[in-house]
Amino acid sequence: MTLRSPAKTAAALSLARARRPATLALLRALLRHPTVSAEAVHRADLRRCAEWLAGRLRTIGLDAVTVRPGRVAPVVTAEWLHRPGAPLLLVYGHYDVQPAGPRESWATDPFRPVLDGPFLYGRGTSDDKGQFTAHLAAAEAWLTATGTLPVNLRFVLDGEEEIGSPTLLHELSDRRRVPEYLRADLAVVSDTRMRDERTPVLVSALRGSLAARLEVTGAAAELHAGAFGGAVTEPARVLCELVASLHDSDGRVAVPGFYDAVRSPTATERGQLARDGPSAPELLAPTGVATGRGEPGYSAFERTTIRPAIVVTGLTTSGPGRSAIPARAAADLSVRLVPAQDPATVARALRTRLAEHTPRTVSSRLVVAASCLPYALAPGSTGVEAVGRACTRTFGRAPVLLPSGGSIPFVSTLAATCGTEVLLLGFGLPDDGMHAPNERLFLPNLHRGTDTCIELYAELGRSG
Amino acid sequence: MTLRSPAKTAAALSLARARRPATLALLRALLRHPTVSAEAVHRADLRRCAEWLAGRLRTIGLDAVTVRPGRVAPVVTAEWLHRPGAPLLLVYGHYDVQPAGPRESWATDPFRPVLDGPFLYGRGTSDDKGQFTAHLAAAEAWLTATGTLPVNLRFVLDGEEEIGSPTLLHELSDRRRVPEYLRADLAVVSDTRMRDERTPVLVSALRGSLAARLEVTGAAAELHAGAFGGAVTEPARVLCELVASLHDSDGRVAVPGFYDAVRSPTATERGQLARDGPSAPELLAPTGVATGRGEPGYSAFERTTIRPAIVVTGLTTSGPGRSAIPARAAADLSVRLVPAQDPATVARALRTRLAEHTPRTVSSRLVVAASCLPYALAPGSTGVEAVGRACTRTFGRAPVLLPSGGSIPFVSTLAATCGTEVLLLGFGLPDDGMHAPNERLFLPNLHRGTDTCIELYAELGRSG
Repeated sequence: MTLRSPAKTAAALSLARARRPATLALLRALLRHPTVSAEAVHRADLRRCAEWLAGRLRTIGLDAVTVRPGRVAPVVTAEWLHRPGAPLLLVYGHYDVQPAGPRESWATDPFRPVLDGPFLYGRGTSDDKGQFTAHLAAAEAWLTATGTLPVNLRFVLDGEEEIGSPTLLHELSDRRRVPEYLRADLAVVSDTRMRDERTPVLVSALRGSLAARLEVTGAAAELHAGAFGGAVTEPARVLCELVASLHDSDGRVAVPGFYDAVRSPTATERGQLARDGPSAPELLAPTGVATGRGEPGYSAFERTTIRPAIVVTGLTTSGPGRSAIPARAAADLSVRLVPAQDPATVARALRTRLAEHTPRTVSSRLVVAASCLPYALAPGSTGVEAVGRACTRTFGRAPVLLPSGGSIPFVSTLAATCGTEVLLLGFGLPDDGMHAPNERLFLPNLHRGTDTCIELYAELGRSG
Repeated sequence: MTLRSPAKTAAALSLARARRPATLALLRALLRHPTVSAEAVHRADLRRCAEWLAGRLRTIGLDAVTVRPGRVAPVVTAEWLHRPGAPLLLVYGHYDVQPAGPRESWATDPFRPVLDGPFLYGRGTSDDKGQFTAHLAAAEAWLTATGTLPVNLRFVLDGEEEIGSPTLLHELSDRRRVPEYLRADLAVVSDTRMRDERTPVLVSALRGSLAARLEVTGAAAELHAGAFGGAVTEPARVLCELVASLHDSDGRVAVPGFYDAVRSPTATERGQLARDGPSAPELLAPTGVATGRGEPGYSAFERTTIRPAIVVTGLTTSGPGRSAIPARAAADLSVRLVPAQDPATVARALRTRLAEHTPRTVSSRLVVAASCLPYALAPGSTGVEAVGRACTRTFGRAPVLLPSGGSIPFVSTLAATCGTEVLLLGFGLPDDGMHAPNERLFLPNLHRGTDTCIELYAELGRSG
């Protein structure tokens, strides 16, 4: 007996509900892998986690499960291609995580997930292990309950997202040589945030990014601060002057040419952002600070989404500190870009500005570590209605269409290289603490997310 | 048979010469103690080194050898008070060292001294283990060769100089309660540099210092740079702006009141500094940079000695870096002060300036870690001629009288509290790399320094 499609969806939903404890247990096991791609010491952990995921994908019943060696960490892929004529959907997620930072910043061990009320705490709970787990659980529910899937499916689980996805970006560097495992009719990614617990968001745009390190070098080695202080150019002071020179006193970026390609929003767009987006207090609530600061003339939400920004993410100096003049100082800059800014053009503008402001007595250079293009969902995109119907069934409302301030290198590159439409439908919350200590996942979202994926696959299958 | 004084000096010099290999071997043993007072992990090393020094002082034949517990490390003291009527000379040195910094900055292990040509490499070779070893060797030569000393002598070996000498400064905090072991008619300290290999320097002044950490705190935790970048005040950017605001574009300190107490040098003083002090190329030679930068209207040497300076010695940020906005950023400042600047007054001026320039959306504070007063040798000081005669005999010339840019907290505090005259006669060289990687000692100076101490004790005994 073959179930009709709505009945199949109901069976998958029912199975997923029964499996919730198992899904949570599997997520907890996944979270115990300290998969920090930015730290060389975790290479073996990344490999072990990739193998663990491959085992999980095989258990679910997917085909062609492959652990593909990457520059730093493997890409884990799998597929299910048994529904001729239905669309081919690519699910992208990443199993690597941000560094946890100092242990004392965390209330619990970042790699020993702890359940507290409705929250699961641990590095990667929200970004992104918890979120892509919803897709694994949805595929498993479909295949276990019905033996089939309503769409053709590909999984691409990246181990290098937090370091700019170098392996996958290389695979996408030439549109004529994109490997088969990255080809799809459309893609869905759950690595973003909802508006609040009740309001899902379909992301209309992602900012691009340029991660660069500004280095200032002075003397050949550290110098005695008493013997030389006052007579030499201190790299740390010059670094501070250079960083300060990147903005004017009003908070606008002061790099000539920086805003050249940035399109001004229309009154209609601004109205929609003001209506559907978070207010400044809502946006700032997770930060614990009452008042923001940024580019004049724009709201807090606009400043984090449709406006570019230069963000200082780290400062370091060489040497023992205290009473020596460091020979080298560096600032990590995370430049967030909006359409149609080009990372390379922005890097050139930055270099010109920094060169002009560097005294001749020291040297400075800007080293680009990673970059990615901004992404915008094309107007009239085919998946939008399917997402709307799926969310209406699970969250009781269609998602609001909002831009996100974040960057997902794979998403913008896949769109740019292959023209693939990417649906960014995340189950995180604004106060999950992504990239911060005490990261957490609101567990009801894991389960409603799973249900939403089950419904979304069905909707996309119908629209195929 | 009692030798006449010149014959006794000759006997001591002769014995010191014979003992040069033994003196070097003892210095090498001393250097193997990693006595980094700024790093808590080295507490036991400091205690072990103090005990080792106590044994050495007993072997030399000194009395009342005592290892006195300190806040971080012990003070080792000893005395020889068997020449009634002769002056009581206090020899101060410090057995703690600066942190070595990253191992890869060193060509050799910083705590395994290596001899290469005339140089002995290792942390503390010049600052200050190698220098006070000259005094130990001189006292040993006198006592072994002649059974006596021409002066009464006290040794005070500090284990906390590089962290501001908290224990000894506390002992000197009330002039009515200065302990007996710190009382003397005059003091001699070898912890400074010569003009060059052939020209000794008697230091006419030391700069004071104020070590402080400027902290800027923003959100309660690290924030995702994509989600929040552009809408929040970044502590790291504010820190850079605050540090940049401490100087004007010409390189003058821009803190109102900072220069108020600073006396302008006379034309005569400036002429002497220009004649006897190093030229800018000489001063900058160890730095590897061709051109300096500093307060307009002053020479490089003046900028490092008779002019105050605010030096940035470190920059740090909290969190994992790269793509998070740090919640906290800090700059270590080493403010170098000249007579008659007062550390507390300068700290107040800095706090006022920083408060004015801190946006309301973050908080900043300046935490003073340590401070010490400037020091100036009183005009017509009694020891100057004795030093001149001693150096003429060993170096062939009297020392030049020059100010130093460094700070020795014990020296300025002893002078301020007890009125003790301190003779600063160092055997280091400008390119020894004090506080830097690959610190070294020019070994001929160890031996000529020992001879100079032998002669100096005799001269001071005659003048008593």
